[in-house]
Amino acid sequence: MTVRVGVIGGGQLARMMIAPAVELGLDLRVLAEDEGMSARLAATAVGDYRDLDTVRAFVRDVDVVTFDHEHVPQEVLRALVADGVRVHPGPDALQYAQDKLVMRARLAELGVPQPDWAPVDDAGELQRFIDDHGGGAVVKTPRGGYDGKGVRVVRAGGEADDWFAGLAEGEALLAEELVSFTRELAQQIARRPGGQMVAYPVVETVQRDGVCAEVIAPAPGAGARVQEVAERIGLSIAEGIGVTGMLAVELFETDDERLLVNELAMRPHNSGHWSQDGAVTGQFEQHLRAVADLPLGHPEPRSPWTVMVNILGGPEQGALEDRFASAMSEHPGAKIHTYGKSPRPGRKVGHVNVTGDELDDVVYTARAAAARFL
Amino acid sequence: MTVRVGVIGGGQLARMMIAPAVELGLDLRVLAEDEGMSARLAATAVGDYRDLDTVRAFVRDVDVVTFDHEHVPQEVLRALVADGVRVHPGPDALQYAQDKLVMRARLAELGVPQPDWAPVDDAGELQRFIDDHGGGAVVKTPRGGYDGKGVRVVRAGGEADDWFAGLAEGEALLAEELVSFTRELAQQIARRPGGQMVAYPVVETVQRDGVCAEVIAPAPGAGARVQEVAERIGLSIAEGIGVTGMLAVELFETDDERLLVNELAMRPHNSGHWSQDGAVTGQFEQHLRAVADLPLGHPEPRSPWTVMVNILGGPEQGALEDRFASAMSEHPGAKIHTYGKSPRPGRKVGHVNVTGDELDDVVYTARAAAARFL
Repeated sequence: MTVRVGVIGGGQLARMMIAPAVELGLDLRVLAEDEGMSARLAATAVGDYRDLDTVRAFVRDVDVVTFDHEHVPQEVLRALVADGVRVHPGPDALQYAQDKLVMRARLAELGVPQPDWAPVDDAGELQRFIDDHGGGAVVKTPRGGYDGKGVRVVRAGGEADDWFAGLAEGEALLAEELVSFTRELAQQIARRPGGQMVAYPVVETVQRDGVCAEVIAPAPGAGARVQEVAERIGLSIAEGIGVTGMLAVELFETDDERLLVNELAMRPHNSGHWSQDGAVTGQFEQHLRAVADLPLGHPEPRSPWTVMVNILGGPEQGALEDRFASAMSEHPGAKIHTYGKSPRPGRKVGHVNVTGDELDDVVYTARAAAARFL
Repeated sequence: MTVRVGVIGGGQLARMMIAPAVELGLDLRVLAEDEGMSARLAATAVGDYRDLDTVRAFVRDVDVVTFDHEHVPQEVLRALVADGVRVHPGPDALQYAQDKLVMRARLAELGVPQPDWAPVDDAGELQRFIDDHGGGAVVKTPRGGYDGKGVRVVRAGGEADDWFAGLAEGEALLAEELVSFTRELAQQIARRPGGQMVAYPVVETVQRDGVCAEVIAPAPGAGARVQEVAERIGLSIAEGIGVTGMLAVELFETDDERLLVNELAMRPHNSGHWSQDGAVTGQFEQHLRAVADLPLGHPEPRSPWTVMVNILGGPEQGALEDRFASAMSEHPGAKIHTYGKSPRPGRKVGHVNVTGDELDDVVYTARAAAARFL
């Protein structure tokens, strides 16, 4: 009676669930968008995750459903739940990762610290928000943004006119104050359906061009207070919105040592990739344990430091294998994870994890190994 | 241009290559003996590995061939090599894992320390060997033995008559002196086709009923001299017989602190499973790196101690999942690896790895987690 876990979406997150699924003895089945996706080894169906019939046919042969991404429409998710399918995270939780306005409103109810925000539905409202918040704002499309897409820093109400023009009746954009932050952190939480939760150490994330470039675990210099606050925020959100599986909470750390919630992700997240090699239980294994309702594993780090550096596709196509061999040869202690994607400039095609006792050495080695792919 | 690695045999060793193959971006393809084998997720063909046509059809779509076991006949291996197929380890090396008499003769040529031995082809010869070696001997069938099968301790020449009766013209049994050993050790070596080698720390293996039950890495109390001797033996053998991939050398440590070679395995081996969670580079990843001719990874331990305990099928069928949940719940730091096999009394269905700073705690936790499956 092997538990069959169905993953909707065939990207690298689904791919990275394959290894722990094999070791845990779970039967992983993936509904991929196309042939040849990252998670092709476990793909049992190819089709459109927005189409209820396609998704219904896929879930017929699984015991529990989870996700590679947060884009499955609420109608589809709610129909599955009505069919009696176990869906983790469920639609009630996922809506907060799907719509940033809904998320902001819920975090306010939960009393979780976050930047000042407001829905704005035209340039005039945006201008008033800017005037009230020191002459600038971050504008976000509530839905569909990722890796810096759908996010814009503005100084005038007219700088989001193209987005306002695209809004349907009753829709709004999200305006947020420009937070003066010293760095970005991320807190990972895992939660089982019954409520069991574990918290990972808070990590520092370094973004470049709106894309996560590097993660240091644990966050250097984060004392017990910062860890405790980050953990409390993460646990409150996971509990408050009923997440099942992994939750990533992206946080700003401000000049005055406050932590403010930036974004949420309800799945394994780039800021948690370090845990594959750096924690007793990696986030992909933990996500599977949580969604299959198995006891959670220890989230503790296995080394004083782990650094993750993303591998981005370089300007040249095709030579990825040679660059792998070079990185492996120069850095035999680096753990290289590949996504089975053809490289394109700026596209994430893998990541490197390095662990060790001395942060300087670990950062240097992780960057040097990843740089072999440029 | 993803490298396609073909594995002949669909058992748990092939299964445990799946996780690192995904992370390394290798395309693993398995020729399984049957449907539903441990490595079914990566099975691209089902058929008889003794049949040249079956194997030839399988290897047509791979770049390099390796093995889950050592039973592929020499004729098949040599035909592949003649076809120009890259086979690792190759037939010249594999013959020493396939025939213990050939192995003993070659180790003697290499000057590697081993128990006294002789080929014996009837009860009279065996009796003379026993008389010359203190009144006892170990008799082995040179081919096809594993996990204690094909091995017998005898005190009289007539105690192997059934085996003598089964010998063909020109065949013999292997007689070995009964070594007075204090414990058993194992040394893992990885070797690339070009000759690059790395040595793992020497480990202690605990056998029960001829089956590996427990491994402690590194071997407790093994000083620099024992590590150095074990490593030198391992490297001499790997080099001397031209192994490619992983080599496991099982060793006796004697009362007078000598190390004598007991058995060889040319593949990832039970005595190396600890390295999946306990070393920077696990043996399954290392084997794939070696056979795909990629640079080898660091073999160093990641924790002061790692203990591996095998999970054997208990007297009851079917309740394996419940026992898993219980083990995971009581021991959230234990890494549980399952083989996707239905449990039978005494059958290896998985193993547990536990790492930590204090050997007593690590041994206790690993045994306690594995005991949840009994």
